[in-house]
Amino acid sequence: MLEVLQPTEEPGWVLAHEGYSVLTESAVESRFALGNGFLGMRASRSTGRGPTWASWLSYIRWASWPRCYVAGLFDMPNTEPPVPALVPVADWSRVRLILDGEPLVAREGVMLYGMRRLDMRRGVLLSEWTHRTPAGITATGHELRLLSLADRAVGLQLQRIVLDRDGIEVRLEASFGLAGLGMEPVRLENDLGAWRTEGTGKVVAMAGAASLCLDDASINPERPFPLRWIFRWPSKAGQVAEFSRLVAVARADRSAEDPAPRATAALERSTSAGWRAILERHEVAWDVNWSASGIRIEGDDDLQRALRFAVYHLTSAANPDDDRVSIGARGLTGDAYFGHVFWDTETYLLPFYTAVWPDAARSLLMYRYHTLSGARAKAELCGYRGALYPWESADTGEETTPETVLGPDGKPIEILTGKMEHHISADVAYAVWQYWRATGDDEFFRDAGAEILLETARFWASRAVAEADGRRHIRKVIGPDEYHENVDDNAFTNVMARWNIACALRALDLVRQRWPEHASALQDRLALDDRELDDWRDAIARIVTGLDTATGLYEQFAGFHALRQLNVADYADHALPIDVVIGREQTQGSQVIKQADVVALIALLPEAFPEHGATINFRHYEPRCAHGSSLSAAMHARVAARLGDADMALRYMRETASLDLDPDPNSAGGIRIAGLGGLWQAAILGIAGLNLMGETLELDPKLPLSWRRLSFKVRWQGRSVGLSVAADVVEATLIDGDPMDITVAGLTRNLEARSSLRVDLPSEAFRGVAEVCA
Amino acid sequence: MLEVLQPTEEPGWVLAHEGYSVLTESAVESRFALGNGFLGMRASRSTGRGPTWASWLSYIRWASWPRCYVAGLFDMPNTEPPVPALVPVADWSRVRLILDGEPLVAREGVMLYGMRRLDMRRGVLLSEWTHRTPAGITATGHELRLLSLADRAVGLQLQRIVLDRDGIEVRLEASFGLAGLGMEPVRLENDLGAWRTEGTGKVVAMAGAASLCLDDASINPERPFPLRWIFRWPSKAGQVAEFSRLVAVARADRSAEDPAPRATAALERSTSAGWRAILERHEVAWDVNWSASGIRIEGDDDLQRALRFAVYHLTSAANPDDDRVSIGARGLTGDAYFGHVFWDTETYLLPFYTAVWPDAARSLLMYRYHTLSGARAKAELCGYRGALYPWESADTGEETTPETVLGPDGKPIEILTGKMEHHISADVAYAVWQYWRATGDDEFFRDAGAEILLETARFWASRAVAEADGRRHIRKVIGPDEYHENVDDNAFTNVMARWNIACALRALDLVRQRWPEHASALQDRLALDDRELDDWRDAIARIVTGLDTATGLYEQFAGFHALRQLNVADYADHALPIDVVIGREQTQGSQVIKQADVVALIALLPEAFPEHGATINFRHYEPRCAHGSSLSAAMHARVAARLGDADMALRYMRETASLDLDPDPNSAGGIRIAGLGGLWQAAILGIAGLNLMGETLELDPKLPLSWRRLSFKVRWQGRSVGLSVAADVVEATLIDGDPMDITVAGLTRNLEARSSLRVDLPSEAFRGVAEVCA
Repeated sequence: MLEVLQPTEEPGWVLAHEGYSVLTESAVESRFALGNGFLGMRASRSTGRGPTWASWLSYIRWASWPRCYVAGLFDMPNTEPPVPALVPVADWSRVRLILDGEPLVAREGVMLYGMRRLDMRRGVLLSEWTHRTPAGITATGHELRLLSLADRAVGLQLQRIVLDRDGIEVRLEASFGLAGLGMEPVRLENDLGAWRTEGTGKVVAMAGAASLCLDDASINPERPFPLRWIFRWPSKAGQVAEFSRLVAVARADRSAEDPAPRATAALERSTSAGWRAILERHEVAWDVNWSASGIRIEGDDDLQRALRFAVYHLTSAANPDDDRVSIGARGLTGDAYFGHVFWDTETYLLPFYTAVWPDAARSLLMYRYHTLSGARAKAELCGYRGALYPWESADTGEETTPETVLGPDGKPIEILTGKMEHHISADVAYAVWQYWRATGDDEFFRDAGAEILLETARFWASRAVAEADGRRHIRKVIGPDEYHENVDDNAFTNVMARWNIACALRALDLVRQRWPEHASALQDRLALDDRELDDWRDAIARIVTGLDTATGLYEQFAGFHALRQLNVADYADHALPIDVVIGREQTQGSQVIKQADVVALIALLPEAFPEHGATINFRHYEPRCAHGSSLSAAMHARVAARLGDADMALRYMRETASLDLDPDPNSAGGIRIAGLGGLWQAAILGIAGLNLMGETLELDPKLPLSWRRLSFKVRWQGRSVGLSVAADVVEATLIDGDPMDITVAGLTRNLEARSSLRVDLPSEAFRGVAEVCA
Repeated sequence: MLEVLQPTEEPGWVLAHEGYSVLTESAVESRFALGNGFLGMRASRSTGRGPTWASWLSYIRWASWPRCYVAGLFDMPNTEPPVPALVPVADWSRVRLILDGEPLVAREGVMLYGMRRLDMRRGVLLSEWTHRTPAGITATGHELRLLSLADRAVGLQLQRIVLDRDGIEVRLEASFGLAGLGMEPVRLENDLGAWRTEGTGKVVAMAGAASLCLDDASINPERPFPLRWIFRWPSKAGQVAEFSRLVAVARADRSAEDPAPRATAALERSTSAGWRAILERHEVAWDVNWSASGIRIEGDDDLQRALRFAVYHLTSAANPDDDRVSIGARGLTGDAYFGHVFWDTETYLLPFYTAVWPDAARSLLMYRYHTLSGARAKAELCGYRGALYPWESADTGEETTPETVLGPDGKPIEILTGKMEHHISADVAYAVWQYWRATGDDEFFRDAGAEILLETARFWASRAVAEADGRRHIRKVIGPDEYHENVDDNAFTNVMARWNIACALRALDLVRQRWPEHASALQDRLALDDRELDDWRDAIARIVTGLDTATGLYEQFAGFHALRQLNVADYADHALPIDVVIGREQTQGSQVIKQADVVALIALLPEAFPEHGATINFRHYEPRCAHGSSLSAAMHARVAARLGDADMALRYMRETASLDLDPDPNSAGGIRIAGLGGLWQAAILGIAGLNLMGETLELDPKLPLSWRRLSFKVRWQGRSVGLSVAADVVEATLIDGDPMDITVAGLTRNLEARSSLRVDLPSEAFRGVAEVCA
């Protein structure tokens, strides 16, 4: 077993954390979390922990926050206000080691060595520790944990334990940690547990198997209770105990459906295959994913590592086989935001999946299709037509943003985003269009995507109301800059809304041309008549955008330019966010921006910035941004890269990378996956200049001088294309699929099947801004 | 069933809370909590709740904090720092009512009426509610819950449910809420569950039985899982469903011991008796307790109610049958302070138990005897001799004060009380002596109490170190006033220490006289020789007390008089404690006192205040006290009453009463039982002037003009004495026991068996201070 417990040799693939500090432990548990899009698991130590339970006390600090999650397993806990939340499932990896009757607990005795490693290449968490107990016994352990990417129902744990003494009575208790669960058990027998959520009536089944070998001979456990195995033996110094455990999980979304047979079947196929086969298949699956999504940066080891980390978590978060779930703001790595799905998914994550893992992208978009009824209901409730996606979404597509949360002082803070942050409807539409352009997935477009585009467009047309000035306004919204609430005509919102409507009209034309019966059936079903379409065209023409055509500057929202100016840089060294430092009211009265707002618009809709508009707006808004969100820096990096400011792009990329890679306690509630998606965008959509929305696959690189080469693959309309960008040349290889056109630095060439193409770049790698924004 | 669901008619026995607010719900759950000293249970609604689970998020607010506790069931959770804490056990009272497939949830539909009542006389929690579901069904429920005072292992729940419609498919799911438990199940079968704590290896077993009658015919439940009963029936409008459930609980302190047979036996004796018998025996037990401990105040309904409330919770908190547990700072009513035992128990609660329930007092003191080894270990660890009781104590007597807790801002705050608040050793000794004086329990005194007195005295002699000035000093302590840490020669500590040593010498003499073999065996065992006793006498003579004999004023600690003066009254209107308002550092530099310190000394050792000393010190320190602890006001009330300031005494009593009776969210973590014990003291030891430490039973009343009469009973050296105090006369009745002497207002008279005595009081009810302090 020892050989598989060793990490990949190349250090660029491995993140290591030595020792233990209560200040950073929860963040390490998030950072090194495992996931396969169906199951998630924080990287808590499996051995040496004490118990955790539900506590009401705000003045205690848990030394560790062990948590396992199942995607889509939401229930409504007894909170005020009530908000659906991901329900934790049993921690199936706990091991208690009891030596001569004394449990080995990390806080007692001396931890001589403790190392956790995330082997990103293999998708495994590796631990190694040596502990001297108060009784003077030295125990050494190695561990591997994984959540299988080859068979998402399955998790594996391997442990290897050696003691330094003869004659110790060793007891190894392997159990499913059942403490702290918010569900009631409905079954606990034959190593199968099933639990039901109270409100939503979902059922989760978990089956387990465990074995232990001493000198290659397996020993029989005591079985006092289901999902608990107790192995006992007298120690010999240096003798190796090898423990392995399998878990298989299944979820059912209705009480009537029994997930137990699926969990049992998954366990049976795993036990009959054996752990070596499970590990091997998992590693092969990761190899396949890395081969499709890996990025190679020559000349920047730090960002190379950060991008691997990003791709690791992006890969861990998605599940192409389940189109009823999406990815929450912290993936399946922590409790923060209750597992809710935000615009983060479409705006920050989807480009990655669309470009390198279209099956995952499709599932994520189908989640929005399946939750259209919730979006329609929300629009209706708010007095609009069409589909208004919830700002926060769980499993049903109902709005799940809490109306209040408790501030640090225990007082409730009103949360307005659920009522006012409407741009998400356009963000979803954007991701649908981008996916279809990049993949050519007509079936999705015809059967699902077009309906999302039409229903969101319909929402916007009803949302943008014609007023006395002859323009249509979108009032009382929150844009991406959440420091300013209840604003009118937020540029990001309005321009995205206009684009959304225009895109829907284009989509409808397309469906009419290609699938006329579908088109008329769809129009009938949606009761979408020509008069309404005329109204949409009117909306496109008359929606206020905030663009001052004289200066080329957008006003972030009506009245923003008149707010008090503030030198945001003065607050850069503060440990606290600026809105905490200067207060909510002061912030609202100032030109201080939480996160990329107009800047995000530059990234998404460069065509909305004619002439030098992109530069003008970026130079205006970038210094005003306080980056009070983990989403902000990456979007600035992407835009800075497009505008040729490589230094700034790299700086913002490093800032984003440090969010979850550095020991930042804010990761405690889970990794900030949107930041990681943004980091990928900064490299691929920013520096490499990949455009997924064009007629052809487009690349327009702006390689920083310090980078020698950036290599990656993308999928384009069913094909697989390898791309390698150096300072003076781009190499494109059509790995798989039919011949295609590719546009590099504005020049379109044909790429033959299974062949490569070299395109020389103009000698000055960084060209003028005008060209970029053309 | 309906008749038993009605509250006691006399409103003075019943506390009522109508409706529901998330702001006060947790406090109501504490206030109306049930307990019998072995089991505790918060007054959460049993029906209509959503699930609760372990959450890491500080920004959510639980709408309710349902919790059941078992006294002494401590484990070490995985917190940092690690601190033993009471482990919650299964909430055995949850009922889910599912109507036509839709669970009735309080937050959905309309709660037309909701009332909870604490019937203090009967010791039962009564609920009544009428709810209209979103489907328009109106359901009305009545409930009774109790934890039996007649058989502490047993709890009972009765529910009566009526619907307003025919033909609804009703499903009533009664289960043991197993969510959020910090223990692993070791057994779940035949309606018996057993769980084991991980670190301490304790086991708790819970057995349950449930039944439901429709029109007096019982219907059979489905039994999908142990400790879960599902009853189904089609509704008829107005039909009465009567549900009853029993629970029986047993605790074992070692893994090897199986508590299951005890739980099963308790369940069997309960089911065979039937719920009517259980309820009746419980009510009889409460009657007996009320008869011994009830207080009658004529002329002050508010304080009458408050004192009933105090006696209710004091009665609910103690268990004379278990001398391995004591009473935590919040009893068994909430999570705050982890269930830890402080000086509160001996100083604030023991006088009640000693005076009216000596068996409970004895058990509580035996807990300190059983934890002497922990106290000895702490003394040794700190470099002292004898027994230094832990500031916070759980089950073993080890120090369990957390070294840090998280402040409201999430930053750790260092807690020094565990290192420095040593006066608790003298407080325990004081309670031992008081108990023995009042009860004459020689067996306890000889076999346990004397050893506590000697070992604590030995600690103080080693703690008070002779210095160059020829005096013995006790440096680096915290007195009851915890606003000032790390002080030298705290008057309360030093005077109590001196008293402790003197009392130990007296106790040793007594044991030598009466049980000479015991005395020499004890001295041998403790290796207590004459040289050491000489050192004790030296300590008594030379310990610094801080008393200025010229002015009669004690200095609270060395240097207190030199601190900045502050007008504490200026801060009285602040919602926040003064140390939060002016900051910790400012507080430490000021003459502002957290709670009764020198004032507590006046109460405990009036003989330390010669001449007008009590008044001088009270008038000096009372205005300097900010009452930053729930313990403070009651002690001030007691002393104000002794000094004849009835107005101030009543004001402080009302303040104390309002702590838990008013909707104060600070009760959320449990009722402040020390405040309730202090309230009892203010009435009985303050206003009635009962002295439990004298040669005879002493009474020296100072009845407020507004009170017509104060009547109560006390136990005195095996006897039961009824006392009734009016403005001009005291009536004493020897209800049970041999003739005895009684001293009323300084005059000693003989009280004959089964007879009464009237003692006229001097016409001026409020006499001079000098007489009080004589």
